Amino acid sequence: MSANISELASQLASIARSFHARGWLLGTSGNLSAVVQREPLRLAMSPSGVDKGELTAAQVLTIDEDARVTSDHAVKPSDESLLHIRIVKERGAGAVLHTHSVWNTMLSDLYSREGGVNIEGYEMLKGLQGVRTHEHNEWLPIISNSQDMPALANTVGDTLNNNGAIHGFLLERHGLYSWGDNLAQAKRHIEILEFLLETIGRTLIAKTRG
Amino acid sequence: MSANISELASQLASIARSFHARGWLLGTSGNLSAVVQREPLRLAMSPSGVDKGELTAAQVLTIDEDARVTSDHAVKPSDESLLHIRIVKERGAGAVLHTHSVWNTMLSDLYSREGGVNIEGYEMLKGLQGVRTHEHNEWLPIISNSQDMPALANTVGDTLNNNGAIHGFLLERHGLYSWGDNLAQAKRHIEILEFLLETIGRTLIAKTRG
Amino acid sequence: MSANISELASQLASIARSFHARGWLLGTSGNLSAVVQREPLRLAMSPSGVDKGELTAAQVLTIDEDARVTSDHAVKPSDESLLHIRIVKERGAGAVLHTHSVWNTMLSDLYSREGGVNIEGYEMLKGLQGVRTHEHNEWLPIISNSQDMPALANTVGDTLNNNGAIHGFLLERHGLYSWGDNLAQAKRHIEILEFLLETIGRTLIAKTRG
Amino acid sequence: MSANISELASQLASIARSFHARGWLLGTSGNLSAVVQREPLRLAMSPSGVDKGELTAAQVLTIDEDARVTSDHAVKPSDESLLHIRIVKERGAGAVLHTHSVWNTMLSDLYSREGGVNIEGYEMLKGLQGVRTHEHNEWLPIISNSQDMPALANTVGDTLNNNGAIHGFLLERHGLYSWGDNLAQAKRHIEILEFLLETIGRTLIAKTRG
Repeated sequence: MSANISELASQLASIARSFHARGWLLGTSGNLSAVVQREPLRLAMSPSGVDKGELTAAQVLTIDEDARVTSDHAVKPSDESLLHIRIVKERGAGAVLHTHSVWNTMLSDLYSREGGVNIEGYEMLKGLQGVRTHEHNEWLPIISNSQDMPALANTVGDTLNNNGAIHGFLLERHGLYSWGDNLAQAKRHIEILEFLLETIGRTLIAKTRG
Repeated sequence: MSANISELASQLASIARSFHARGWLLGTSGNLSAVVQREPLRLAMSPSGVDKGELTAAQVLTIDEDARVTSDHAVKPSDESLLHIRIVKERGAGAVLHTHSVWNTMLSDLYSREGGVNIEGYEMLKGLQGVRTHEHNEWLPIISNSQDMPALANTVGDTLNNNGAIHGFLLERHGLYSWGDNLAQAKRHIEILEFLLETIGRTLIAKTRG
Repeated sequence: MSANISELASQLASIARSFHARGWLLGTSGNLSAVVQREPLRLAMSPSGVDKGELTAAQVLTIDEDARVTSDHAVKPSDESLLHIRIVKERGAGAVLHTHSVWNTMLSDLYSREGGVNIEGYEMLKGLQGVRTHEHNEWLPIISNSQDMPALANTVGDTLNNNGAIHGFLLERHGLYSWGDNLAQAKRHIEILEFLLETIGRTLIAKTRG
Repeated sequence: MSANISELASQLASIARSFHARGWLLGTSGNLSAVVQREPLRLAMSPSGVDKGELTAAQVLTIDEDARVTSDHAVKPSDESLLHIRIVKERGAGAVLHTHSVWNTMLSDLYSREGGVNIEGYEMLKGLQGVRTHEHNEWLPIISNSQDMPALANTVGDTLNNNGAIHGFLLERHGLYSWGDNLAQAKRHIEILEFLLETIGRTLIAKTRG
């Protein structure tokens, strides 16, 4: 499969600016990728250390399956490229998005003892690919954070293997990962999971009244 | 009555983009409609599964009273078209809007045992058509969520018949419906009800701290 | 004193769109005015029932000291024009702004028994005209809401007379009024008071812990 | 070292508009500066009393090490220019940014007895220059607020000397200061610290409910 790099790069930059405006990619945090081709693997990837509110298509680089830059860019790819590559391989995903929102950071902390967040009974769940009813249990695993990217990529791989139905996962006190067949679906999944995490967080605060 | 489809479609797309920016239509959730003509009924309706932040007038389709697409679009209409049609028929509404906000989702859950949310004493209520004073009780019924659209449409019909004065209703853990004589009035009603639900939700949290 | 009506109208429309984006003028709520001339009094005033997110300079009307429209507009002025006129006369204000935010609505309810909100010790207070230090007590009176505009205008007049130093007041479960020598100063005062009310509201929730 | 004033001024104005949109510079609050040259010191500085949502590059003035305006502007520089100058000298910073957000104001109040906020264990910390892991303790000192700028500048100088590793500090019930080698890095630091303060504030509220 091959795709138009410049088209993917501009979609990716547009999503980055939209998510930065919502406060989900502040301080150059987070990263975004989309599959350009699979054999050999080429990913369009956001560069490291760039203000996502000003990301342009021209800044989007391409990397191979070992996270080496294959495009003509001097900058390095995101430190977390290995996680994107693992998700693409394990899930056959066409796009992977990673956000740092206040609510996903908070809930990855508050629910760390439970090992994840169970989300059920919300209509919004139907926006997750393959979910047909609000009577659905979505498990959002929480993985301990680490700076050892190869080790963390293996933990992510194990989590994906042990949870075949999940649409995303949290890294503790770090952020949210989700993915999709393409950038539009991955964006939809992030918006839905961010919405549900904020709803659960605010409900937690409101319910423990009286 | 007949109206300019392209004008309605562009108004509808503009409202969709505005509400998406506020986080009320994330992840392709929610839907919007406006009456094009009544005999036979034709509704301008947002397509299913589209990013409301990027909705264009050209994407807006038209449907008949059985929710069949009558315009030249390959996509299907929103699953909830039957609810829009029922509201249009029961209320003679010219436009129907449905939003998924964090606050309307939360309150439809927190107040489900009460069967609805009673809103009274707020000046903002005067923005609801026909309300002349803040000394008004607005009942916002909560309907159990369902994936059986014909059955849900009947429940909505009963709710409208049993509550002649209401300006909207909540679907439990799902979202808010409101309507108006035209798109501008329906937009006004959504903005007012969203405002009041956020105010009630935040006040609930603040009051139970003192 | 005379001013350029079209310039005032475009400033007024720009502020309306900015405040609507922040959620302070949802559902056609709130209103804005600026003095065009004083003898005889002419106010540039936002029309009633208009979406403030789409307000244009051409829609801004002018009224006299009895709130009669003097410009060539078919629409009626805001119901609350009498309050604007009273504030202009009592304070010699050049502009009056009225917002409906979630936080000002909440605090006008939560503090109604105290008769107002006392704001002290915040650097932000220095943005209020004439305040030189954060060691300042700003009293924000809360006036009971009413639909009798002449009576409410008199209560507002009494409140202004009895509180010579105030920069604004709240109407209970209704909203915030502030003013300034000109539109820029009135906008600054609204932004500051909205900021301080949100800060006090969130602090109230956080402090009542443990 | 010399830099392009107009380029710095337009970057500075762009950051001001972005932060105003987030509600971090409401009511003409806050100020921004960037080093134009060091020998003799020249700072590009936001003017006092200007709406940051409408700041233009042409309004940005330049000051010397005594906070005297050296550009052809009639307005005065920010009252807090002395703090910017001190930070530039103590840290060799290329840019200094000061924001007034609801969350930084709240936490500078709630944590004043502790003398600061300790931030640890968040991935977001890695966005602070020189931080390599989330297993990092960032101390954000809280300095008592004052209107005596020379005295406050000295306290700031002492705080910087006594806390060599800090990336910012809070002024009690006033706001946040951060800095960087250039405007992009300073903007990144502000976004990260604002994000972390909001996360800590919301977590504080949520945890004390369980």
